[in-house]
Amino acid sequence: MPTIQDVALHAKVSVSTVSNVLNGRTDRMRAETLARVEAAIAELQFRPSKLAQQLKTGQTPLLGLLVPSMTNPMYGYIAREIESYAQEHFGYRLLIGSTYRDRDKESAFFEDLSAQGVRRVIVISSLADERHFESAVERGMTVVSYDRGATPGKLSRVGHVMPDNFEAARIATRHLISHGHERLAFATVAGMTMSRSAKIDGFHAAAEEAGLKGKVLDGGPLDEYGDAVIAEVGRATAHQIAALGQRPTGIVALNDLMAMGLMAGLRETGLEVPRDVSVVGIDGLYLSGLSNPGLTTVPLPVKTMARAMVERAMRADAPPESAESDQVFAPEPLVQRESVAAPPDRQRAARVPEEGTAS
Amino acid sequence: MPTIQDVALHAKVSVSTVSNVLNGRTDRMRAETLARVEAAIAELQFRPSKLAQQLKTGQTPLLGLLVPSMTNPMYGYIAREIESYAQEHFGYRLLIGSTYRDRDKESAFFEDLSAQGVRRVIVISSLADERHFESAVERGMTVVSYDRGATPGKLSRVGHVMPDNFEAARIATRHLISHGHERLAFATVAGMTMSRSAKIDGFHAAAEEAGLKGKVLDGGPLDEYGDAVIAEVGRATAHQIAALGQRPTGIVALNDLMAMGLMAGLRETGLEVPRDVSVVGIDGLYLSGLSNPGLTTVPLPVKTMARAMVERAMRADAPPESAESDQVFAPEPLVQRESVAAPPDRQRAARVPEEGTAS
Repeated sequence: MPTIQDVALHAKVSVSTVSNVLNGRTDRMRAETLARVEAAIAELQFRPSKLAQQLKTGQTPLLGLLVPSMTNPMYGYIAREIESYAQEHFGYRLLIGSTYRDRDKESAFFEDLSAQGVRRVIVISSLADERHFESAVERGMTVVSYDRGATPGKLSRVGHVMPDNFEAARIATRHLISHGHERLAFATVAGMTMSRSAKIDGFHAAAEEAGLKGKVLDGGPLDEYGDAVIAEVGRATAHQIAALGQRPTGIVALNDLMAMGLMAGLRETGLEVPRDVSVVGIDGLYLSGLSNPGLTTVPLPVKTMARAMVERAMRADAPPESAESDQVFAPEPLVQRESVAAPPDRQRAARVPEEGTAS
Repeated sequence: MPTIQDVALHAKVSVSTVSNVLNGRTDRMRAETLARVEAAIAELQFRPSKLAQQLKTGQTPLLGLLVPSMTNPMYGYIAREIESYAQEHFGYRLLIGSTYRDRDKESAFFEDLSAQGVRRVIVISSLADERHFESAVERGMTVVSYDRGATPGKLSRVGHVMPDNFEAARIATRHLISHGHERLAFATVAGMTMSRSAKIDGFHAAAEEAGLKGKVLDGGPLDEYGDAVIAEVGRATAHQIAALGQRPTGIVALNDLMAMGLMAGLRETGLEVPRDVSVVGIDGLYLSGLSNPGLTTVPLPVKTMARAMVERAMRADAPPESAESDQVFAPEPLVQRESVAAPPDRQRAARVPEEGTAS
């Protein structure tokens, strides 16, 4: 790669002359000198390094993005929207990393970003503890955390953008209840994040308002590769469900990917969706429209949230915020497909009227 | 973010004293001075910037990765494997960008990477023209291109790593033929890339060796968001197929995502997989195991290829290579699931023996 010295040598001028050309300070330059420098720049294909400038400002037009795992299509979707917005509106590129929701991996990534001169970071983590984010902010970074809120009653300099996970799960659960389901379950994975906990609360709230008691099924932990295998945990949950005596008939899955694994697992056990079990997802992945049966799901407003995250990441001067300042986005209207029907006993009732009730 | 000047000011020493401490030149320093500098570094949480060092070497431990679209799970899968290997073996992070296979977007990304000091880039593009890669190499970058080979008979300084796309499609097609299919089709999208063209050749080769003539179905162009919507093109292809007089009974899809869209589309038209139409995918996405029916697919060796791409990207001194030096990786053995059966007429033949042939 040619340096400014190479250009100077080639044009037989001083480095400061080249620098003057690069910075447009050519008013008092001889036309012949200017032409020679420009020819040398063209010939050597010299591109002025942004590094020198970054050294002065400590700023790099790079936005850090930490995701639990790149193989989870939901994070691919969010990353794409963040990338488009950051690129089009601010000229930023993405420096991206998978952390598998591991605190040490997250911290190491922050160190590298910092050393790299990156000052703006969006983290999809949802880990309960965010002291390592606060410490990055103290060192001059602007950090936006997705999918978890600020700790109530505490001021935080980390920005918080998230979907209303409580509401998303409540909508999904109410949808099952409106179809007559009384034996409800919420399918999740081992390990509590703030977003998982909010969804479980929303599930319970909907069950309780209908006088029902929902069950939380934990399909087990995710392996080292994290959120990609969430579908496998869904599959394992299906086998748990099939083995239960009093089977739930309506299931809300933690997210679409888990719902897709759950439906695959139910098929393996001989249970049919929605005849035997109804399933609702959360996220609104385009993949959920390809599943068979089509997955009914509560979509999250990914585009809007991505925009909010980028905007917040660009505000280095944002004052400390309390939990009240969290940016919480309502889910989009539920998309009804084919994975929900009335529970099996209601289906029978509709087909075979009970004795004494038939007129 | 504290600077070296802040540390010097805080410790009441010169900047060069701080620099000496940072670079371990403390032999002749008074213990008290050293202690004061170290205390200032700790108190201000000062982290020496790698930028200064990068300015000298022009190198940044960042690996550029260009993908057509982050929402295509195949690229999420490849990116994850590239990231793991680059991080664990070389301490590199990923600077990633979606290009939607657009030459101008690719060129712009190269400019930004170059200005950022990034010298190693992996490009998933498969565009026929790679002059913009060659020009990046001329400017000092190490570029690895995935999914397309070098131009035969021409030396190239771009590294080429790819699956044997011809063989993958041939294996998929032979599998259909071995089940008795004679009316074969290859479902693809508008726009020819080298990998698409190699797959189509492999499809035709398998058909011809069985004395058959395969049909190539083009479901239409991808929209601006590129490869995520490839499933939608698959869906459109299904509607094309349903409308054909002489319907193909065995279809090889360009990749798993397209196969999943194709199966969803076939369901919409009332055609059943595999009863009416058999489908084989290429890629081996974990998602293909969740589809209903489970998708039979030819997996590509993603982990091995990711490793080869990173290793090649780290070899800045690689000599110019010809097409013979392309690193081509054989597909993994076909994974048999439920999307392939005998063609409808054979199924009938098996159930209702033709007159005169029943013994």
